[in-house]
Amino acid sequence: MSSWIPGADGSAFPLENLPYGVFRVAGGPDERPRVGTAIGDFVVDLGALAAAGGHRHAPLLTGMTLDGLLAAGPAAWREVRGWLTDLLGDRRWESGVRPHLVARDSVELLLPFTVADYVDFYSSEHHASNVGRLFRPNAAALPANWKHLPIGYHGRAGTVAVSGSPVVRPNGQRRDPASAGPSFGPSERLDLEVEVGFVVGVPSPGPVRVADFADHVFGVCLLNDWSARDVQSWETVPLGPFLGKSFLTSVSPWIVPLDALRHARVAPPPRDPEPLPYLRDVPGDPWGLDISLELEINGTVLSRPPFRSMYWTPAQQLAHLTCNGATLRTGDLFASGTVSGPEPDQRGCLLELSWGGAEPFRLADGSQRTFLEDGDEAVIRAWAPGPGGVRLGLGEVRGRVAPAS
Amino acid sequence: MSSWIPGADGSAFPLENLPYGVFRVAGGPDERPRVGTAIGDFVVDLGALAAAGGHRHAPLLTGMTLDGLLAAGPAAWREVRGWLTDLLGDRRWESGVRPHLVARDSVELLLPFTVADYVDFYSSEHHASNVGRLFRPNAAALPANWKHLPIGYHGRAGTVAVSGSPVVRPNGQRRDPASAGPSFGPSERLDLEVEVGFVVGVPSPGPVRVADFADHVFGVCLLNDWSARDVQSWETVPLGPFLGKSFLTSVSPWIVPLDALRHARVAPPPRDPEPLPYLRDVPGDPWGLDISLELEINGTVLSRPPFRSMYWTPAQQLAHLTCNGATLRTGDLFASGTVSGPEPDQRGCLLELSWGGAEPFRLADGSQRTFLEDGDEAVIRAWAPGPGGVRLGLGEVRGRVAPAS
Repeated sequence: MSSWIPGADGSAFPLENLPYGVFRVAGGPDERPRVGTAIGDFVVDLGALAAAGGHRHAPLLTGMTLDGLLAAGPAAWREVRGWLTDLLGDRRWESGVRPHLVARDSVELLLPFTVADYVDFYSSEHHASNVGRLFRPNAAALPANWKHLPIGYHGRAGTVAVSGSPVVRPNGQRRDPASAGPSFGPSERLDLEVEVGFVVGVPSPGPVRVADFADHVFGVCLLNDWSARDVQSWETVPLGPFLGKSFLTSVSPWIVPLDALRHARVAPPPRDPEPLPYLRDVPGDPWGLDISLELEINGTVLSRPPFRSMYWTPAQQLAHLTCNGATLRTGDLFASGTVSGPEPDQRGCLLELSWGGAEPFRLADGSQRTFLEDGDEAVIRAWAPGPGGVRLGLGEVRGRVAPAS
Repeated sequence: MSSWIPGADGSAFPLENLPYGVFRVAGGPDERPRVGTAIGDFVVDLGALAAAGGHRHAPLLTGMTLDGLLAAGPAAWREVRGWLTDLLGDRRWESGVRPHLVARDSVELLLPFTVADYVDFYSSEHHASNVGRLFRPNAAALPANWKHLPIGYHGRAGTVAVSGSPVVRPNGQRRDPASAGPSFGPSERLDLEVEVGFVVGVPSPGPVRVADFADHVFGVCLLNDWSARDVQSWETVPLGPFLGKSFLTSVSPWIVPLDALRHARVAPPPRDPEPLPYLRDVPGDPWGLDISLELEINGTVLSRPPFRSMYWTPAQQLAHLTCNGATLRTGDLFASGTVSGPEPDQRGCLLELSWGGAEPFRLADGSQRTFLEDGDEAVIRAWAPGPGGVRLGLGEVRGRVAPAS
């Protein structure tokens, strides 16, 4: 496949990718948010393009969010994607499309959909084992339930923000093990978590089976679950993480549709014991995903977590999330949990990379870190294999730490 | 104070109450949801009334939810309440108001606002101590952090529903202590929790001080946090409650404005140790609330939990919820946690009332219960003191258990 858009072939956003997002051209004649797709160094203004061409799905694309497109379901998703693949792949359409191209470096990217509920899972065996060893050194590394169900919890939907949003160091209550009582102040153990997020399109009044995952989930983003470890560890017993997480969750601006990830689907790792029937993979329909993640701080790549090593797939997570009859809404967002591979340089958070703060790591400028300092910038990037050896970018989620206010 | 509405004086909804809700007249000429207030046995159609009178706040009342009114803030809340108090208290306005009265038993009551994020606290010392004794018999009854901060967690906003919504027994994964592995099926320990919910009106970009509680919170509802104890206890370590709670949370349809509860404000219980400064009560501005709750199952009143015994006030809960910089949105809902008083007949959930299932209790028909059976109907009701000895009703939240599907 090849696009007539200059530079698209071989870029992170080739014709095989076509992720969806919402952009704004600040200072332009019309500053309203618009729906777009990324290709090469450009954004295509999909609302304008669809309206100009009188496309029957134009109403899904002329709004200020992806919400309409998300809710429309797989048939409409395929139709819109087919239409775009044709328009951007066939030079005959160039003169009609050209007026709707915007340079990607001239736009502001916004949170592309209305987040309904946000759930965060905990599905990397390596991450959960490392955390267990750090926090519960005298117990089994994994909790007793861990291999029976994808553990998760609800996070704060209202503080999910787009990449680039400032990461204001949170204040909070924590207890220094050496002191008698707790204190309040800026977190001293500000961390990040490399994750992949899944965006629900089609609502459900009840359980969504593993087999029906792609009938409901629209696509994939990158997600950074910023975490104040000192706040978290003091508050977390018995009801789980709360203020240690709720100040900010950042997501990448481009939602890569599941359709673009067909070639990234791989078998998940073997599970032992076998999960209960409602959590079993469907033979021949695997939802492991071969997404290669990368964590960079201040220009130094610290780790490369492999998403294919995740124990529980997003299809299992969604089946579990709904198995009690909980309804799904358009815009529900659920995340994988920290992605950590088996190797030390595949760990997806600083808690693991610094082994609980005991083993500082070094950045390229020679400085050392255990947790994030004010001014540090963290970037998560990812790629997945597309058809014919093409590499698809999932974009990035970026954030710079600002001092506590 | 006295209303010209027949039967309003002395009812649960007298002139001093005036809670807000959203109603629909099924089968009427206009079935759209409308904003109303309850008085005596009537609902006043506020949208129609305000539009007819050309009230300057009519746009806050003519929508299909309370969202506009919630966002408008304390000055508008006072103005609307003052206007209503005049209209419904002074017989000179009777002929203008009469056309906008609807019999309360002829309307369907709907979820009155768009729930943004839902947070559940755990702020009854008696409840937390009982749960601690039941679940951790060999440890301290209260977790180490309990008297330092109001423990809470995020729940599922998408499954908050209005009173009367069916309580379908959830399926889920649980582990019988006697068996080796977990199983999946209908919960065998379906419980309820008697709670009070607080509805946020005015958004905040950051921390809300204890002193500023009433600048942001609009009013109060009753809340039943249905809980599948077997699912909850298997899933809850280490990230807290998830599917054991997320199938349904029911709220009462009438939101009683804080203004109506002025006479219910009482000093909270003494705290030892003294909380950190950001959690301290403001002298002379107490946010303990003298709300008397009642739990009834199948017509038998099982307990009468006193809200005034809560250790942490809603003002402290809100200050804690936002102390890390987490933003507030209109429609954020936070709940007190199970309200249990010091006496056995003041316990707010069946887990406590049956002491973990070990001590069945008896209903008026002679039958015994530990947890809820299919067909059981639970009702939570509440009252608070108004001015001059008047008793204000907070309405009720009701739900009947339907078999698992």
